[in-house]
Amino acid sequence: MALNNSCATPSSSCPPGGESNHVPLSPTSFLERAVRVHPDRPAVVEGDVTLTYQAFYRRSLKLGGALQTLGVAPGDVVSTLGMNSRAMLEAHYGVPMAGGILNAINARLDGASIAFIMAHAETRVLIFDQSLRRTVARALSLLTSPAPVLIEIDEGSDDAPAWEQPTLHDYESLVAAATACTPVPVGDERDCIALNYTSGTTGNPKGVIYSHRGAYLNALSNTLTLKMDERTVYLWTLPMFHCNGWTHTWAVTAAGGTHVCMRRVEPARVLEMIHTRGITHMAAAPIIMTMLLDRPEAATPLPHPVMLATGGAPPNATTIARMSALGFNVLHLYGMTETYGPSLVCQFQPEWSSLTPDARARLQIRQGVGTFAIERVALKDPVTHEDVPADGRSLGHLMLRGNTIMQGYIKNPDATRDVMGRGWLDTGDIAVMHEDGYIEIRDRAKDIIISGGESISSIEIEEIMMGHPAVREVAVIARPHDFWGETPHAFVVPISDTDRPSDAELLSWCREHMAHFKVPRHVTFQASLPRTSTGKLQKYALREHQKTQMATV
Amino acid sequence: MALNNSCATPSSSCPPGGESNHVPLSPTSFLERAVRVHPDRPAVVEGDVTLTYQAFYRRSLKLGGALQTLGVAPGDVVSTLGMNSRAMLEAHYGVPMAGGILNAINARLDGASIAFIMAHAETRVLIFDQSLRRTVARALSLLTSPAPVLIEIDEGSDDAPAWEQPTLHDYESLVAAATACTPVPVGDERDCIALNYTSGTTGNPKGVIYSHRGAYLNALSNTLTLKMDERTVYLWTLPMFHCNGWTHTWAVTAAGGTHVCMRRVEPARVLEMIHTRGITHMAAAPIIMTMLLDRPEAATPLPHPVMLATGGAPPNATTIARMSALGFNVLHLYGMTETYGPSLVCQFQPEWSSLTPDARARLQIRQGVGTFAIERVALKDPVTHEDVPADGRSLGHLMLRGNTIMQGYIKNPDATRDVMGRGWLDTGDIAVMHEDGYIEIRDRAKDIIISGGESISSIEIEEIMMGHPAVREVAVIARPHDFWGETPHAFVVPISDTDRPSDAELLSWCREHMAHFKVPRHVTFQASLPRTSTGKLQKYALREHQKTQMATV
Repeated sequence: MALNNSCATPSSSCPPGGESNHVPLSPTSFLERAVRVHPDRPAVVEGDVTLTYQAFYRRSLKLGGALQTLGVAPGDVVSTLGMNSRAMLEAHYGVPMAGGILNAINARLDGASIAFIMAHAETRVLIFDQSLRRTVARALSLLTSPAPVLIEIDEGSDDAPAWEQPTLHDYESLVAAATACTPVPVGDERDCIALNYTSGTTGNPKGVIYSHRGAYLNALSNTLTLKMDERTVYLWTLPMFHCNGWTHTWAVTAAGGTHVCMRRVEPARVLEMIHTRGITHMAAAPIIMTMLLDRPEAATPLPHPVMLATGGAPPNATTIARMSALGFNVLHLYGMTETYGPSLVCQFQPEWSSLTPDARARLQIRQGVGTFAIERVALKDPVTHEDVPADGRSLGHLMLRGNTIMQGYIKNPDATRDVMGRGWLDTGDIAVMHEDGYIEIRDRAKDIIISGGESISSIEIEEIMMGHPAVREVAVIARPHDFWGETPHAFVVPISDTDRPSDAELLSWCREHMAHFKVPRHVTFQASLPRTSTGKLQKYALREHQKTQMATV
Repeated sequence: MALNNSCATPSSSCPPGGESNHVPLSPTSFLERAVRVHPDRPAVVEGDVTLTYQAFYRRSLKLGGALQTLGVAPGDVVSTLGMNSRAMLEAHYGVPMAGGILNAINARLDGASIAFIMAHAETRVLIFDQSLRRTVARALSLLTSPAPVLIEIDEGSDDAPAWEQPTLHDYESLVAAATACTPVPVGDERDCIALNYTSGTTGNPKGVIYSHRGAYLNALSNTLTLKMDERTVYLWTLPMFHCNGWTHTWAVTAAGGTHVCMRRVEPARVLEMIHTRGITHMAAAPIIMTMLLDRPEAATPLPHPVMLATGGAPPNATTIARMSALGFNVLHLYGMTETYGPSLVCQFQPEWSSLTPDARARLQIRQGVGTFAIERVALKDPVTHEDVPADGRSLGHLMLRGNTIMQGYIKNPDATRDVMGRGWLDTGDIAVMHEDGYIEIRDRAKDIIISGGESISSIEIEEIMMGHPAVREVAVIARPHDFWGETPHAFVVPISDTDRPSDAELLSWCREHMAHFKVPRHVTFQASLPRTSTGKLQKYALREHQKTQMATV
């Protein structure tokens, strides 16, 4: 019986019924379902405003209608430049329902980078926060392509920068006056729903293509991974412009939960909202955990458990243990723009509950196993593509395969081929696989330190130095060395500036806890470490600093 | 920018990377993930035997290898005829991994029906329970197509029926001796993974085609709907041959939970296992709930909440309220073979917790809203295809659309066209939609009673009569009437046979609680109602009985 061949395509001799039984996967369907199942439940909370799912859906459709009136045709790009807000959430549904492609630009970028992205993405409409007027003006002045239609989000602050741009729509008035659109059907589920630009530490940012299918599957995978349901109250501490908020913009809606917006992450306010708003879930870079723990309010245990998904940079065990003691269930995720955000999860095994907090936290700093949506995870030799052993020691390139790997970099087939031309996405991260199958990232390929022919993981040194009671933060980079090639150089932020440890004291701690060849040869104390807006350590900035330092010595 | 068109197909000018970012969806991937994430957790429990995910995976691969050795080629059908067992679960993975199509036949069918199905499905291999030897022998004697290879599951009982079939493989020996197969890659995710025959109350059974994609999506939807995770311990009270156990055969594995097998549903044993095995989830037809409540052990509250998904027939409010009082969280699902099992769910709204148990149960008897996997639910006029109002009164045909609607009936394009040729699957069920969007089935199209031109829902009458304290079960059918056309006829099973209510008492109760034209004109008391093996009421049997009754009057 040749069932397989006869039913592979609906147009063939397969039994009729193609419209009934094939609907392209798209995360906009989560909102369609939520409005039917939970019409009166709170969908979005922003300050004193609460939108039910009915209202949220209606506003998203009206945004879609407004965009169509402004000329957005299927396949056109609508960019956003803003902090977390209900307008940003509405764009995650209204733009694709209008047939457009959502391009959420990092709101902390400078005008030149924004101009580059808008020209590259051929932005038709830009929706932006009023407080970013100056940045937008700068970007527009540098723009080499036709200027987009501008829609401004009034944040209700009195001190908006002066603005001489003549043609400008007010977001609220536009939505209020618009006619709801009829959602444009998704033609093929592999069509583009969103375009997210990488931070581009080397060269220009690259535009990562997300498909409707990938976004649907990654969102559903996140709903399961974070155990979200209709009782979920999700605090938006993670920027929505970061991989569409790791696709949580769609996942929370799939669960029928409530999005609670937060424009600026103020740690005291986060803790307060957990108490007063019944927050059950949040996501944040590890730096946010450190900020929360620094607050005096963090002495009070949480009134209920809060699931906190962290990622974007490796968290450390001490921080996780302290957060757990406070009442957070910390779930460590790993991902990148190219994987729709989360692609690995340090899945918490029920047995870990019986471990000591420290032992448990040491397991939790690992990046873990593939999420539901990722089909295959491998550690490979980048040249031979052979798997390295799962022995907790052998280093390999972390490679991924699955429906939640990007469609590619837009207008950049060479870069696409470089990272995924051989059947796997090469993440560029160097990792080991432990015997239990959990991955632990040792470094970015470019951050590994090669000393006397030995590979040294800068992250491993950082993790050990963080264990010293006087160390608050630490970053380790390679320092050129005539004899060894490279040696580790540690940049340390002490807990207290007045009572900081000596170099010798720190290095003696290191010698006790790691192989001697890994012990840093240099220590530099600093008041803080350079980080991106999303909490990623900027090691290249430390390298610049090191160069200057070495030149002046 | 024409992103959509350029990226619709991987072979076009789209950036390269097709292998990295497109993997056909298949529920076998849930086992691949579970074995990596939970290798040492219990996957399957059967009596005293516990298989870890590692062992379960290994055995499934070896079953696949054995089937290939026996000649199973991609697209070939492997039928099973057995009660819930680890072998049945292994078949749900081993058969598709060998490239085969799983056809789980209802183990309670007679030889003639089994012979029809095997001939129609062109069964290459039949895996069956030893206790069903006589039925299999009968089926083989009636078979008009080549006899399949036979694999027998030894259930460990001493009284296996005598058997003279010469060529026979023992399941355990076969798996033990086999070489693990290399899973056959899924070519297209819409290829067939399973073939499930309808019960066919009219005419021959029809073979419903499930795709890998549909099975993946419905399983994941069930994992979410039933809130399963790695702590889930799922008791198999639902037959796995019923829509692949409503796809829970795959959903529990997706969650990394534990399958606990049960060959025969003995109510006392079910309650005991909840206590001793830590059961957290189960699924069963409403009749099983009634059987559980009848046990003296049901006086003891459960030691922990158990999620019980029920469906296959409409449950009644009294039963749900009593089950809830005992500690079950009853979740009412609706579905049919054509929809991979569950397609509607009476999603429990958090606000319902504050209602009285009776008021809550009355909301829970409704079939509810579309599951995560169903894209559209509508109540339509079957001729004009126009939507009927959501007013809780207007009757319409329940129609569904989505990726979890069957690919069609195999070798039966006419029947396929009949039910899904107009862009929707017409379930044949008559329902109302309440103002909150929840569907409530009033009847099968053929079970509706037309009296004096008015449509009367037999289910509505049954629900009201169940509220009478002396009524244990009730079924209402149409009775031909010279003047009215039809009138309702109630078949009643009293709580106590010695103390049963009079006709007049029951009808007076009805007149108090329903419009007078709906009150049954006839009442027949019976010791039990005819039901199928899966708890579905057999109204056609009551109609036969009625005919005999009327003829003798």
